[in-house]
Amino acid sequence: MGPAAGADFVRLFVDACAQHMRTMGEPVRDQAFPEHWLAQVPVPDRSGALERADEGAHQPLEPMLQALGRLAALGSRAVAIACNTAHAWHGTLQQRFPQVEVLHVAREVAAHLAAQGETQVALMATEGTYRVRLYEQALADAGLQCHLPWPDERALVMRGIYEGVKAGDLPLAQACFSEVALRLAERHGRIAIVMGCTEVPLGLQGVAAVRGLRLVDPARVLASALADRAYAGTSPFGSSAFT
Amino acid sequence: MGPAAGADFVRLFVDACAQHMRTMGEPVRDQAFPEHWLAQVPVPDRSGALERADEGAHQPLEPMLQALGRLAALGSRAVAIACNTAHAWHGTLQQRFPQVEVLHVAREVAAHLAAQGETQVALMATEGTYRVRLYEQALADAGLQCHLPWPDERALVMRGIYEGVKAGDLPLAQACFSEVALRLAERHGRIAIVMGCTEVPLGLQGVAAVRGLRLVDPARVLASALADRAYAGTSPFGSSAFT
Repeated sequence: MGPAAGADFVRLFVDACAQHMRTMGEPVRDQAFPEHWLAQVPVPDRSGALERADEGAHQPLEPMLQALGRLAALGSRAVAIACNTAHAWHGTLQQRFPQVEVLHVAREVAAHLAAQGETQVALMATEGTYRVRLYEQALADAGLQCHLPWPDERALVMRGIYEGVKAGDLPLAQACFSEVALRLAERHGRIAIVMGCTEVPLGLQGVAAVRGLRLVDPARVLASALADRAYAGTSPFGSSAFT
Repeated sequence: MGPAAGADFVRLFVDACAQHMRTMGEPVRDQAFPEHWLAQVPVPDRSGALERADEGAHQPLEPMLQALGRLAALGSRAVAIACNTAHAWHGTLQQRFPQVEVLHVAREVAAHLAAQGETQVALMATEGTYRVRLYEQALADAGLQCHLPWPDERALVMRGIYEGVKAGDLPLAQACFSEVALRLAERHGRIAIVMGCTEVPLGLQGVAAVRGLRLVDPARVLASALADRAYAGTSPFGSSAFT
């Protein structure tokens, strides 16, 4: 994710908290929101590090461990990482800070879709996310089949992320993402399409051409899961976002 | 401010950082954004505390001091408080943490408007903000005259904030805020209208009736000032937001 997606994650979390209060029949009051912190720290590119395998894989881990440690020191009980690719290091992060629950975005999405009775989905994500089979594994564990884009379509997604959203060229991002989403829908019918990189929703939301598609935003599912944890306890909650 | 306005402040800060990079002719890269933290902690209602004067005034201060102390402990060099009314405690907060620069929203806005050659403005704010003359003082110091809404209009602003934005009733907020803004414009002509409470822009932006008015969003000015501080140094930056 980039910092814009991190900012958007706070918005989704606040929305999810308000929704929780409404569902519980409680008035939405400022003071009824749980304490929460957002950490946005520079982290080397995750997809790049996963490509370079062993020699590069430790580079994103160090700043993520530091940020998580500081969130833990603030008293966070649960932490959501608003970057899909960063979940390649989820196991290590969780292991090093057992006192904090580090939510796993793909497992939350898989549980959410399984609960809705879905049996198959398509996945738009970064090369790094595909490489570590982040969603494929979590979806398979929940009994869902996962369709991936073709290589040329994956390249289009990467272009929309890096040359589009991250570089501030929204029209390019919209063109790349919507073409891939439409092709997936053409091939697989009206199945749910998981936007498995936080930059994808920023470039797909509001695009007229994809209005009929069933787009799933993992950040929204993750924010809702974090809000559920927040209202299950009383301690502060961290949202760790990595730029 | 409420937590929704806090989330929006991060978005404005990230936007201001990207704008800074573009102005400097640098590519907008995720890793070029400065480290920043958002603290959102429950704080008793500020306007209410200021009304109850001495007996209530310490209540918002304690959690704000705690949040600021924790941001300072994280190594923050500059902190922006994304709540106008909370600036009633600015002096104490700054005094207690001299190692951190606590930005002052009204002084930043006054400097910004003076630099643009403005000589008079109108102010939409909470009763608490009027009570401590937050903007009136800062604007006067910068040589600007400040027009306040009439008592019935102030009541409308408060209603739009509390029963509108904070309670999730956006249409009510839009009706309250736009009526006051239009009345101010009718009385004072095309002067700048400072939206001196973070809930006001959330209820006025995009309202067709006020499209021609010159609305100034202090959160945007403050976010831009915080980004300037961030790129002037290398240490982390805190954005303390109080719900």
